[in-house]
Amino acid sequence: MAVSNIRYGAGVTKEVGMDLQNMGAKNVCLMTDKNLSQLPPVQVVMDSLVKNGINFKVYDNVRVEPTDRSFMEAIEFAKKGAFDAYVAVGGGSTMDTCKAANLYASSPHSDFLDYVNAPIGKGKPVSVPLKPLIAVPTTSGTGSETTGVAIFDYEHLKVKTGIASRAIKPTLGLIDPLHTLHMPDRVVANSGFDVLCHALESYTALPYHMRSPCPSNPITRPAYQGSNPISDIWAIHALRIVAKYLKRAVRNPDDLEARSNMHLASAFAGIGFGNAGVHLCHGMSYPISGLVKTYKAKDYNVDHPLVPHGLSVVLTSPAVFSFTAQMSPERHLETAEILGADTHTARIPDAGPILADTLRKFLFDLDVDDGLASIGYSKADIPALVKGTLPQERVTKLAPRPQSEEDLSALFEASMKLY
Amino acid sequence: MAVSNIRYGAGVTKEVGMDLQNMGAKNVCLMTDKNLSQLPPVQVVMDSLVKNGINFKVYDNVRVEPTDRSFMEAIEFAKKGAFDAYVAVGGGSTMDTCKAANLYASSPHSDFLDYVNAPIGKGKPVSVPLKPLIAVPTTSGTGSETTGVAIFDYEHLKVKTGIASRAIKPTLGLIDPLHTLHMPDRVVANSGFDVLCHALESYTALPYHMRSPCPSNPITRPAYQGSNPISDIWAIHALRIVAKYLKRAVRNPDDLEARSNMHLASAFAGIGFGNAGVHLCHGMSYPISGLVKTYKAKDYNVDHPLVPHGLSVVLTSPAVFSFTAQMSPERHLETAEILGADTHTARIPDAGPILADTLRKFLFDLDVDDGLASIGYSKADIPALVKGTLPQERVTKLAPRPQSEEDLSALFEASMKLY
Repeated sequence: MAVSNIRYGAGVTKEVGMDLQNMGAKNVCLMTDKNLSQLPPVQVVMDSLVKNGINFKVYDNVRVEPTDRSFMEAIEFAKKGAFDAYVAVGGGSTMDTCKAANLYASSPHSDFLDYVNAPIGKGKPVSVPLKPLIAVPTTSGTGSETTGVAIFDYEHLKVKTGIASRAIKPTLGLIDPLHTLHMPDRVVANSGFDVLCHALESYTALPYHMRSPCPSNPITRPAYQGSNPISDIWAIHALRIVAKYLKRAVRNPDDLEARSNMHLASAFAGIGFGNAGVHLCHGMSYPISGLVKTYKAKDYNVDHPLVPHGLSVVLTSPAVFSFTAQMSPERHLETAEILGADTHTARIPDAGPILADTLRKFLFDLDVDDGLASIGYSKADIPALVKGTLPQERVTKLAPRPQSEEDLSALFEASMKLY
Repeated sequence: MAVSNIRYGAGVTKEVGMDLQNMGAKNVCLMTDKNLSQLPPVQVVMDSLVKNGINFKVYDNVRVEPTDRSFMEAIEFAKKGAFDAYVAVGGGSTMDTCKAANLYASSPHSDFLDYVNAPIGKGKPVSVPLKPLIAVPTTSGTGSETTGVAIFDYEHLKVKTGIASRAIKPTLGLIDPLHTLHMPDRVVANSGFDVLCHALESYTALPYHMRSPCPSNPITRPAYQGSNPISDIWAIHALRIVAKYLKRAVRNPDDLEARSNMHLASAFAGIGFGNAGVHLCHGMSYPISGLVKTYKAKDYNVDHPLVPHGLSVVLTSPAVFSFTAQMSPERHLETAEILGADTHTARIPDAGPILADTLRKFLFDLDVDDGLASIGYSKADIPALVKGTLPQERVTKLAPRPQSEEDLSALFEASMKLY
């Protein structure tokens, strides 16, 4: 279980300049996206940097749902700038881009694929020292401020993949609920679904002592190590917060209590899955996002078709947990109960259907699109979706139940329509 | 909030040589005490160092319940050795001594009092880089493997004080339950009481947003920041484990499940109180240990009178939580319920007595000495005990209820006899 330093509180963002000064930073890279670059979270950071006399350059060309090309562009910026620290202000896309920029600028002779997860990349362990990175999340879902993971679309293969190493974990996350008050409702909902799935997947992931291979040298062990007694605490706690606060947070932009709690839940779930890992919902989500045709999500201001990450993850969740329940029915029932199911008279073999029904009701209440069909997929797409899932071994191998290509086909098919 | 790096599992200790190699260490200081130096935990570490070709020197002169003089001796050893990494194998005394040795060897021109907590020392922030320190706890109580705190007796004033800085937190804790199987029952009980009090005190500590002063620069904020939503999770989880496993762990040395769980609970509670802090049980424990006259604890193989830390902490717990309950009665009732009380019909004003009675029953079941009187103190000692508590502001100020000297006298008096 690895370190995540976070500081929580309304207004903590304005301390970023002091933190950087305490770290001895003199030439800082501030990364964000074009939408945020004119908004208060970035303004607060810039004011704090100016006030503390810290030189900085802004990179605001982060792509929402980044690609290898958009990563590469940020890396070039980072290499040229010779920065001694980074600040990422935004959602997972920005934090992940900034992690990659920091990594490759610190390891300038590496090829891009060197650190990308196998089998797509070489998955080399990171042994170069990185610069400090302070992450300021403005959405409440990714948990990227606490993890050593950076996800992107590999355009050539049309699949999502990533870089996973404890070394790229942010030095500090500033969890400031003030940034969550202006999120549109679909952004709150979709990012909340990401928290929900982080919690459910890490809690039901293969137990750490059953994972194989088991590298004898600690440095070659994966960042995602399977469910364990520590990640379990974070997963369950995050799930309780989702159950209590997500609907309120979606429905009322002024509900500071609900939005603050979801902002913390995102970090809590991040610490959990950042150590335990995720499995099928995430593994299957990458082709769902990567193969998007024309779907343009409400409330996302981007110039390209987009299935938001949290939506791509949650749409398969009823099917996935029906499939995995037989491996740990008690855990599946426990999470169903936390999400509102009455499980007092539940039978063990019904754990899967009970959790699936609970999830369907939860999604229906939150106006989620009715399955993969409603975001543009049909049966004819299933072979491509399965093909896009196969390279996601880093996560799919953490599913508690092994899955064949036929199993994956059936899971996609069962996710076409939810209600 | 700073989380700690820990690795848990039977046998993880034998990986220490690889970890040090991965850190690039070539000249390691292995610290332990005379009792442990011939026992398996130290042997396993030495074998792993030899196998990985790492040069090391052993310092086995750690004092159980260390003093400024014993710290200083270890510091001299560290300075002379010019080590590039440290391994501490033992209980809190060893880990704390090793933290101090690492700190002052890394800051060779500092006076000893520079980093000691105010008002006894100067409480300077640590800005020098330290060497990696791997902690291998062999008792299940201190949580020192996860904290930035090192406690010692300041002989000149006959009080316990310490050094508290995130900078001295171990780089990695190896939580290996195999080391707990040979602990005698009183060592298990007393170290378990330390976990119990870490959990209860950090959960009932002053909330972080009510602490004052509130330094505007993050680097000058105390390691102990008051109870907060993250430390709460660790505290409650550790308390549940204590409630479920401590009695089993004390009574049966072969109960690997119970002893493993207590070993983890110690680290969990450490992460909680290492961020939130402790308050009156710990603040008052320092003179109880420091002023010891002739009491020699069963199962402790030392050549000087000794009130084990966990015992010195827990004896005042019924009085302390009676006193603090009015500030957060719900939390006091919640913890009483976890420890086995039936609180369904409890009234809010009874929260203090209910938790106190629950603790008395818990201690009685575990054959704990009947109060301060039974370990050699009388009413005549109370002024000295109070005087020894007053300099412990670092923790006593975190009590949810301010306390006068009269309050402290009354708490010591109420702790003379428990049953």
